[in-house]
Order: sequence, then structure tokens, then C-alpha cells
Amino acid sequence: MAEAGEGDAVPEVGALFFDVFGTLVDWRGSIARDAPPIIGREIDGFAFADAWRDEYQPGMEGVRKGDRGYVKLDLLHRENLERILPRFGLTDLAEDARVQLNLLWHRLDAWPDVEFGLSRLRRKFRLAPVSNGNIGLMVDLARKNGFVWDAILGAEIARDYKPKPAVYLAAAEALGLPPERCMMVAAHSYDLAAAAECGLRTAHIARPDEHGPGTGETQPLVPVDVAAGSLTELAQRLST
Amino acid sequence: MAEAGEGDAVPEVGALFFDVFGTLVDWRGSIARDAPPIIGREIDGFAFADAWRDEYQPGMEGVRKGDRGYVKLDLLHRENLERILPRFGLTDLAEDARVQLNLLWHRLDAWPDVEFGLSRLRRKFRLAPVSNGNIGLMVDLARKNGFVWDAILGAEIARDYKPKPAVYLAAAEALGLPPERCMMVAAHSYDLAAAAECGLRTAHIARPDEHGPGTGETQPLVPVDVAAGSLTELAQRLST
Repeated sequence: MAEAGEGDAVPEVGALFFDVFGTLVDWRGSIARDAPPIIGREIDGFAFADAWRDEYQPGMEGVRKGDRGYVKLDLLHRENLERILPRFGLTDLAEDARVQLNLLWHRLDAWPDVEFGLSRLRRKFRLAPVSNGNIGLMVDLARKNGFVWDAILGAEIARDYKPKPAVYLAAAEALGLPPERCMMVAAHSYDLAAAAECGLRTAHIARPDEHGPGTGETQPLVPVDVAAGSLTELAQRLST
Repeated sequence: MAEAGEGDAVPEVGALFFDVFGTLVDWRGSIARDAPPIIGREIDGFAFADAWRDEYQPGMEGVRKGDRGYVKLDLLHRENLERILPRFGLTDLAEDARVQLNLLWHRLDAWPDVEFGLSRLRRKFRLAPVSNGNIGLMVDLARKNGFVWDAILGAEIARDYKPKPAVYLAAAEALGLPPERCMMVAAHSYDLAAAAECGLRTAHIARPDEHGPGTGETQPLVPVDVAAGSLTELAQRLST
């Protein structure tokens, strides 16, 4: 596919790039289920998951603004964990438990349509996560959930965090494709808007339960090339 | 596997890193077979392959020495092609044929043991190419030959070329592993010596026919942790 399409009016898509947290994996349900046994005390797992995730976007701002150099999301997750522990009365939590909690982000469960959807899409397209998660985290999530990627792209190769343009552009450049032959797939309109701004094509996947039942985007809030309710539906729409 | 082994006397290997050209794929046989039909004239395919490959190591020296910034191997392959065309009386070769020739490096055939050997090794280890080939080239070789990688590491993420230490160290760092929990697998002793110098463990694969029958290393020329005649033998030796 790399060789074809350059002369066409609408260039052929050669690669699909995937957001991961929320789009492919259920971070909230996984953390809510798996954190309490590690903590070993009565705790509202969903409140804990939500509080931890609420620190996610602010945690990346220092790198995005250039106030600090790139650090892996693993480190930001750990810093964010330290920030929320006092709110849950867990300032005395043992170091080993903190390490185990942080590794939960490497073992999140996929939404049920993802493994099969990706395998169908891979027949026709090169597939890569373009996530803010670091390479090692992406590798572990893929091994746990049976994702087969062609490459791991995203924040770590760009040394910056989405929605900064460098992340989308570095992914296209790594595969030797112009942005218009790459399609970003995500459940979040802000991610798709930023990708479109860089010239990528976009596909929205509805994940209405990401932050709890009925809380997610059921439809894209920005113009997109394709909107689908699952990866299997996306595969049908893209004729794979 | 990431979590285990840190306290052991001999740390558990968590990832295998692979040299690709010569170790996993038969660049010589592939180029010798596929270049003449593109060129469309009588030509010694093996001589052409050997001449092109002879420019490979010198071609990377500018980047290694810092005389130029990192450029992808795709570009170096093209520069090297321009260098040898006059020697074969091909200065008038059309641009389209030059482009097609350069893409042959994306479609090299694997040695017969590789696809099955990698699939066995992947049960136990994270697997990544740590090659001087760029990401897009590695993706295309993997899709052609059925390699399943956990990540594409190597020169492009390090922005330098093997055997510079940065390439081996960047690969370990990308997976969040200390060098001693990574093993470099290659058919070339210079590559293994450089990896060992960085603290990685090493496995030698004999590819006696790489540059023509009986020309390759049948045994490692440096101390290694494991020496094997194929990836399937390596999988047996590593108890997968």
C-alpha cells in the first residue's frame, strides 16, 4: 500500500493510528476492580480510578508546555498516584503496593470488540497505537489483550504528548506516509480535532461508558471522516 | 516478566532484540533475484546485491561520526544505489526503476526458520528488531514475512546507527528494562560485541551463506551467552 495512491484525488489510507486509553481499553473498570485488592482496605474503586485519571491531563501539561523535558507516562502515573493517595487516607501505603498499583495501567482490559476488530483492520492497514502511553506500557497492554501492532508509535517517539501536533506528525513520518494517508481512530473529539489539524483523516469510535454509564461521547463533536460504534463496525465501514 | 528477576543473581531475560539484515532475512538472495527484472537488462544479480551492500557500512559512517544528522536507512540505500549504478552501466536508469529497486529492501525474504522461531520465542519474551533499518522498512518486512513484533526499536528511535552504544541502550530503555535483562540476537560478532559492551546478553545465530555459500560466521568470534544454528534452536536453548 505504500506505493499506491499518491496520484489519486483522495489518497489511499495506508495506516490507522489508535488512541488507547478509553478507545481500546476500559481503564476505569479495570482500575476500579484491580486497585482495591492491592490496597487491601475498603475503598470505592471507581472513585479511586476517576480521581487518578482526573490527574492525567494536568500531569502532562508540564511536558506539553516545555516546563520539563519528556518523561514517560509511567512516571506521570506514579506522580499522579502520589497526589491522590492522601485524599483516600492512604499516605501510609507501602512502596510495593504503589509499584503494583502503577503497573495496573499495563494490564487494563480491552473493550470486547477490539481484538477481533484490530485483526480485521490489519488485513488492509498498517496499525499502530498513537497514545500518550509509553512504549513498554503499550507492549504490555498488547500482550495482555492480543493486540497485534505493526509498530508502537505515539508520545515516546515524539517526546511530547497529544494533542501536540508533533505526536501525530512523528507517527506519520515514522511510517514514511504523508499525514493524509494516515487515519487517527479515537473516542475523544479533542484528539481527532488535533489530528485533523495536522492533516490526518479521522474516525470516531463511540465509547459511551468510558467514565461510567452514559458519560462518554456517543457521537463525534467535530467533523470526522467516519463515525462507528465499535472497531468491528469501523472495519466494515472501511471495507476490510 | 517485567516485574520478576530484579533480585536474582542472574537477572531474567525479558526481551530479545534482533538484528535483521543477514540474521533474519536473506538480503543477498532476494536482491539478486528481484533487481534484474526491475532493471530490465542482463546483469549479474549477485554482483549487484554485493556491490550495493558493500556501500552499507560506509554509508552510515557520516551519521555515526556526527558529520550529518540522522537520516533513515531508506535514504542511505538510495544514496548507495546512486553510487553503484555507474559501475553497472546504469546511469540512464529511470527514476521509477530506482524507486522500485530501493523498495526491494522492504520486501526481502526471511530465512526459513524465522517465522516459526519468532512465534515460539514470543511465548516467553518480548521481541523487537534492533536493526539499522528504519521503522517503515521493518514494518514492511514484518508484514511480508509474518513476523510478529512487540515493538519496532533500533536506529530510528535512537537517531544513530549500530554499533553505536546509543542504539542498544535506547532499545532497553524503551522497554523499561536494564540492559542485562535484554539479549541481542545476531549473526555478526561485531554487533554482539557492541551489545555486550553495553551490558546486554548475546546470542549468535550462524548464517554461513549470508554473503554467498560458506562466507558467513559459522561460529561466534567473540564470547556469547548462547550460540545456535537457527531461531528454532535458539528457542529450544532458551526453553520456550
